[in-house]
Amino acid sequence: MSARIVDLIARKRDGGELAAAELTAMIAADTPDYQLAAFLMAVVLRGMSGRETADLMRAMVGSGARLDLTSVGRPVADKHSTGGVGDKTTLVVAPLVAACGVPVAKLSGRGLGHTGGTLDKLESITGFEVDLEPQRLIDQVRRVGIAVAGQTADLVPADRRMYALRDVTATVQSIPLIATSIMSKKVASGASRLVLDVKVGEGAFMPDLESARELAGAMIELGGAAGLPTTCMLTRMDEPLGRAVGNALEVAEAVEALHGRGPADLMALCVDAAAIMTGDRGAVEQALASGAAYATYRRWIAAQGGDPDAPLPQAPAVVAVPAPRAGVVRSCHALRLGEAAMRLGAGRARKEDSVDHAVGIVVAAKVGEPVERGEPLATVHARSAGEVDAAAVAACFEIGDGPYEPPPVVIEVMG
Amino acid sequence: MSARIVDLIARKRDGGELAAAELTAMIAADTPDYQLAAFLMAVVLRGMSGRETADLMRAMVGSGARLDLTSVGRPVADKHSTGGVGDKTTLVVAPLVAACGVPVAKLSGRGLGHTGGTLDKLESITGFEVDLEPQRLIDQVRRVGIAVAGQTADLVPADRRMYALRDVTATVQSIPLIATSIMSKKVASGASRLVLDVKVGEGAFMPDLESARELAGAMIELGGAAGLPTTCMLTRMDEPLGRAVGNALEVAEAVEALHGRGPADLMALCVDAAAIMTGDRGAVEQALASGAAYATYRRWIAAQGGDPDAPLPQAPAVVAVPAPRAGVVRSCHALRLGEAAMRLGAGRARKEDSVDHAVGIVVAAKVGEPVERGEPLATVHARSAGEVDAAAVAACFEIGDGPYEPPPVVIEVMG
Repeated sequence: MSARIVDLIARKRDGGELAAAELTAMIAADTPDYQLAAFLMAVVLRGMSGRETADLMRAMVGSGARLDLTSVGRPVADKHSTGGVGDKTTLVVAPLVAACGVPVAKLSGRGLGHTGGTLDKLESITGFEVDLEPQRLIDQVRRVGIAVAGQTADLVPADRRMYALRDVTATVQSIPLIATSIMSKKVASGASRLVLDVKVGEGAFMPDLESARELAGAMIELGGAAGLPTTCMLTRMDEPLGRAVGNALEVAEAVEALHGRGPADLMALCVDAAAIMTGDRGAVEQALASGAAYATYRRWIAAQGGDPDAPLPQAPAVVAVPAPRAGVVRSCHALRLGEAAMRLGAGRARKEDSVDHAVGIVVAAKVGEPVERGEPLATVHARSAGEVDAAAVAACFEIGDGPYEPPPVVIEVMG
Repeated sequence: MSARIVDLIARKRDGGELAAAELTAMIAADTPDYQLAAFLMAVVLRGMSGRETADLMRAMVGSGARLDLTSVGRPVADKHSTGGVGDKTTLVVAPLVAACGVPVAKLSGRGLGHTGGTLDKLESITGFEVDLEPQRLIDQVRRVGIAVAGQTADLVPADRRMYALRDVTATVQSIPLIATSIMSKKVASGASRLVLDVKVGEGAFMPDLESARELAGAMIELGGAAGLPTTCMLTRMDEPLGRAVGNALEVAEAVEALHGRGPADLMALCVDAAAIMTGDRGAVEQALASGAAYATYRRWIAAQGGDPDAPLPQAPAVVAVPAPRAGVVRSCHALRLGEAAMRLGAGRARKEDSVDHAVGIVVAAKVGEPVERGEPLATVHARSAGEVDAAAVAACFEIGDGPYEPPPVVIEVMG
């Protein structure tokens, strides 16, 4: 076999295309890491055609089990975000959509680097279990209309291997590889409808709108190839989404949002996403206003063993970071603020690290909001006052003169 | 460390350059194969600057031991060929140069694919030992003026590892990687003067003159960077060199050449190479005419345990391949003829294969020579007549009309 694999690598190295069966052989478990690594680098530098990308996704889906959600009896919706700072949309959108009668099943991940993970946020809630057996997950979706769980090991094992390898071989930055990684997991997760949130900006995976559009287009095409209708929102990630950054702090903000009281950017994004997933904006707004969304949230948390009434963990030290001058906030650097939260313990520098659910940063003055000198720009929730690097947090903010209207959080919707 | 290595791979992926210490870290034994493989693919597709290539070579040399030939007391010459069909030049050039008073030390390899290896050819001779301890090798060079031995495991271990990895990751075809692989071994072998023979043509590593010139230029530059004055001959490898292809058959032809009676192309190449290595063409011609070259050959073979008078192994079946028409040989396809010899058992399809020293093919009608219909184009030396594929051998030859003068074997000399 190794003679054949080397020929396939050579073809991609020279800019050629691989057939479906060849891609299946390339990512097979018995292809050594070093051959897969060379192939991945060739893909980064030579690209892949649309047909190849779809075949790679199918090969990845075929490497493991698929979640069969047909027994839910209704089309199930799923959402995915490419990850950003303060991105707690799943905690809001999933119960909001389920409250409108559209069941939601989502397999999620943990955070790494400056972006948080939905599982980490949910684990702030006393008793909440993220490891659900497939049958329990399906039963819960049928019964409560919603389940959010960790990805099981038998789902797209090829992606787990490729992801780990890409991480250490500088082969992360490739539209076909990013798109197949995301979409293979979404296809294997068994939903019938998918909304993707591709973050654009300094704090996001895709730094510019052009590459974000390219990734969105590739994923929409992959959804089509897999019979999974996919809509893609491109949303701003220059400043953190909402005000809270840090696991328990974000849960608290999500609960506020489910009462219709969240920050404007978070509310706008969640309502837009839910409107796409349900196809009924009126129903979404009604579910928020009536309290149905929050009630669904409570049923969901309880179904997964969590206590929605238990107090969330609180950090011992809460320190305000004062504005050095009066003015209007012109920017709040999401990447740097996310990294500051990570250093407090809210996120992981390495996979093996554990997170502190209580710590984080709450933005007091969002972009476009006025601030007086000495008033808080943010409050830092830390294990101790000594761990607060107020200067680093203050440096995330740029304060200007005169009024400033921030651009809308949702840039455009594709697909 | 792995965080740093991934950054180095990323820099090369993006077309940047690595510093000397960074290249040393990249090829270190503790860098995993998958990271090295990704780096090698990035080098194939992004290239390396001359400075980087020299630093990579130095890092490779530094990965192991160096042979110290200073105790020989005189500047030692070395030669290397990129490998071709029927290339027995070392067997002729080494004693020819040594007979002129210039000591020769050469660490050589075994054949793979359609090209033979010098060690395999020498092992056709009863008793000849290719594994020499460094001290024995040095003593022999001092005493007899010549030693040709297998490369020891402690010489450039990084190259052995990289070579094996490149072979299975489609990262062989890269001028900087080919040049550093060859030159790191030559520098570590301790000689003071180097002649390289870069083969050009269908049966060679470098298919066209332009890429051969590029490789030659890179190696000459590396020689300069390492204080090893290097001259590079570019020679034709469209047809086999000389007439004999196969281990014992090539030894017999080399002995003829040492008596001044070899085929014209082989004689021309050997005399040119020896003239460069000694700087004295007259002395080279004199050593051939006087018998000094052959006498040196006999002393060398005996010094390494071989019996120069022992009969060479002979294949049981010798079958002539007749010309299908009268005319003049216009071409003799070296690659296909080499592959036909390999299939007879003269070479290895895989590293683990053993070779049959007796079998091979002797070209009766070289390019430019006339042939009558039914006269032999070649004779095939095989284990049995049933193993002879006469049609495949005949298909290597193209017969045309009228006289045809083949171009000279030495195309040009660089450096």
